[in-house]
Amino acid sequence: MKICRLIILLLIIAVPAKAQDSLIFRRISDEIMLRSNCYENLRTLCKTIKNRISGSVQAEKAVIWGQKAMAQTGADRVWLQPVDVPHWVRGYENLKLRYGNGKFKTVKMLSLGNSVGTDGQVWEAEIVMVHSFDELKQLPDEQIKGKIVFFNYRFRQDFVNTFQGYGDAVKYRSNGPSIAARRGARAVIIRSISTGVDDVPHTGALHYIDTIKAIPAVAVGNYTADTLENALSKMKAYAQLETHCKMMENVRSYNVIGEIKGTEHPERIIVIGGHLDSWDVGEGANDDGSGCVQSMEVLRTFTALGIKPKCTIRAVLFMNEENGLKGGIAYADSAKKANEHHILAIETDAGGFTPRGIGLEMSDERKEQIRYFRKLFFPYGVYDFEHEEGGSDISPLKKQGVPMAGLLPDSQRYFEIHHTNNDVFENVNHRELKLGAVALTQLVYLVSYYGLK
Amino acid sequence: MKICRLIILLLIIAVPAKAQDSLIFRRISDEIMLRSNCYENLRTLCKTIKNRISGSVQAEKAVIWGQKAMAQTGADRVWLQPVDVPHWVRGYENLKLRYGNGKFKTVKMLSLGNSVGTDGQVWEAEIVMVHSFDELKQLPDEQIKGKIVFFNYRFRQDFVNTFQGYGDAVKYRSNGPSIAARRGARAVIIRSISTGVDDVPHTGALHYIDTIKAIPAVAVGNYTADTLENALSKMKAYAQLETHCKMMENVRSYNVIGEIKGTEHPERIIVIGGHLDSWDVGEGANDDGSGCVQSMEVLRTFTALGIKPKCTIRAVLFMNEENGLKGGIAYADSAKKANEHHILAIETDAGGFTPRGIGLEMSDERKEQIRYFRKLFFPYGVYDFEHEEGGSDISPLKKQGVPMAGLLPDSQRYFEIHHTNNDVFENVNHRELKLGAVALTQLVYLVSYYGLK
Repeated sequence: MKICRLIILLLIIAVPAKAQDSLIFRRISDEIMLRSNCYENLRTLCKTIKNRISGSVQAEKAVIWGQKAMAQTGADRVWLQPVDVPHWVRGYENLKLRYGNGKFKTVKMLSLGNSVGTDGQVWEAEIVMVHSFDELKQLPDEQIKGKIVFFNYRFRQDFVNTFQGYGDAVKYRSNGPSIAARRGARAVIIRSISTGVDDVPHTGALHYIDTIKAIPAVAVGNYTADTLENALSKMKAYAQLETHCKMMENVRSYNVIGEIKGTEHPERIIVIGGHLDSWDVGEGANDDGSGCVQSMEVLRTFTALGIKPKCTIRAVLFMNEENGLKGGIAYADSAKKANEHHILAIETDAGGFTPRGIGLEMSDERKEQIRYFRKLFFPYGVYDFEHEEGGSDISPLKKQGVPMAGLLPDSQRYFEIHHTNNDVFENVNHRELKLGAVALTQLVYLVSYYGLK
Repeated sequence: MKICRLIILLLIIAVPAKAQDSLIFRRISDEIMLRSNCYENLRTLCKTIKNRISGSVQAEKAVIWGQKAMAQTGADRVWLQPVDVPHWVRGYENLKLRYGNGKFKTVKMLSLGNSVGTDGQVWEAEIVMVHSFDELKQLPDEQIKGKIVFFNYRFRQDFVNTFQGYGDAVKYRSNGPSIAARRGARAVIIRSISTGVDDVPHTGALHYIDTIKAIPAVAVGNYTADTLENALSKMKAYAQLETHCKMMENVRSYNVIGEIKGTEHPERIIVIGGHLDSWDVGEGANDDGSGCVQSMEVLRTFTALGIKPKCTIRAVLFMNEENGLKGGIAYADSAKKANEHHILAIETDAGGFTPRGIGLEMSDERKEQIRYFRKLFFPYGVYDFEHEEGGSDISPLKKQGVPMAGLLPDSQRYFEIHHTNNDVFENVNHRELKLGAVALTQLVYLVSYYGLK
């Protein structure tokens, strides 16, 4: 049985991929590497609009910019899809730490996204450090009550794929605040979910449990976390925390959608997208300005090369991936209502780094249909089709049974700048960004030509 | 026949790699990703010694630093191998351009390495632009004589592997000056061999032809080259050039060598190295501080894990790769004199970026011996064993028939910073650097254990 499968696999590998596809792959690559405007698009987004958290004025500007940029791809049709999004505002924030009998000193910090504030006051409390939820469980209530819990969990640098490390550590950011609050903690400090050898704090969404009192939560960079850890091994430590962040009323916002109608099967839709919102720090360059400009580049490349896709291709700049997923949900709801037939949803939201693979979250039969073409991708550095990966924005479509794919760029640098002030345009390389757009366009071309049964 | 080969290939793939090797690969990776000091070593080299062109005081300091750092790897023996190296000095340099009737304005520039200067004077001349050697050939002598030839050849951004683009364009830097001088040109300006969307000039070695008068040659960044190109399409342009660079007397310098003696076959040597010298700009972080600290990390990891290699392993920090290769030649000469038996020479000199493959420059039989283990490398992101690549420093060994291998990191960012003021520590990511050391140590482990027949 195993030998049978291997022989079949061998036969598939041995059949040469159509020479025509190989030529089109080359044309796509040349067009993007030589004439793409996606890098300049990203510059405009990052440098003129800057960061753009859902509900902000900048997010509004980003929608207007996105609509215009989308129209310039040569899409047949461009429209805005209304989405009501949460509007979280950071405001002034400050964290001071004191070790033993020392003085309080301000450290770099960022409130976690969606966090509540300290009611306009400075809260002072002792810090209690734990390295895990298990360790917190072991502590008696009196050691937690009224204190600030420091979740000192290190990013696992031994994982080669940093997304594995992120998946492993992010629970302390997402769930830590409510888990500590349940035990009576007053606030939470976490060691940032970061691969960085630096003191850069990383924000990102926390998720309060409804039945537990919401408490403020902030992140500190690795160096501050190291210093705090070291101090707490020898003496007591205290924090003065003042944060003014809060959730405002929902705001009407939009997904930006562009479409090239299919010539043979206009009812079959391939959607590709990234998210237009970002956190309220840095410029949202890798997360996910890159994905936005790459998605639009797919449409532009079809137009520029005069390739008329058999199926309909849609690029979507989703709103509110970071703290609500309202854009992804609205898109999927609309697709369901209109009884649309999506044959594939693709997301690019892992940074504008050199592509290495394409994640596939679909039936094994469909995976094999895509893997059949893997050799065509090799000359473009894309070799890995083994991971089960799609993306957040398209996950609501998955619930409707839509097959998902996700661009898998090199992951080494992502979690050094993710959700930080360093996620800026300068940290995107133009060739890496474009190569991602090349791989995406090649994938869309194949599926639009051969379908996905 | 083809089917036969495929079946053999299939059998090789189907045989599971030894579980023990897989475990040792994991231990190597964990050791380096969690406990390596190579990133901190690189910081010290870049930030305290900075750039270190052959013959300079900094190069001398780098040798002393290298000897100390090498000793800390736990090597059985560390020694310096004398090398006499050229000593080229840049000095003051300035280039002003004037378009049509405009004013002379200073632009960013760098003299090419090994270039002569303008005899302490400001040379003013008209600029004549050509896009290729062929175009130069077409020009009548009177259009070249006494003028400054501008080689306006663009880096081919359509090549996915940037080393292909470098190989394609570098002839204008290496040979352009003498080729233009033969036609009577007074000096040369080249468009930098650069993938950058910027105005950063890139230096690098030129090679004068002995029988032709040596003329000064400088590089300008892509933006300046664009402006100059644009101006020359409409009007005349002129340059004022003053460069004081010159070649000094040779200087005594050293290769730094560390060795762990093999337990079973001490006479069989595996050598791994990078080069300690750099250009006299930036910090030589990717070129090739990274290769130096990675090579030492291989020894440190064997020591830390208590793995006693069967063959002897040597790490070499070669001197003078950039403008003479004297270190590589001295090492090979010494090996020949001592009748040493090198079973493999490995170079890491393509930047501290995420590894993607290992280049193999050896007989097909030997290539297959290494490729047999390729699946072991996959979880570490190393999948490409198809390229014929070794390295400059080890190329003199190749002439003695020694098989060569070279680390192949992701190439997208290298030629944006290569030979520039931007080749600094901050442009090396600690995880990418370490993963390169992981792949190298894994390769050395395999060859030290199984040999290479």
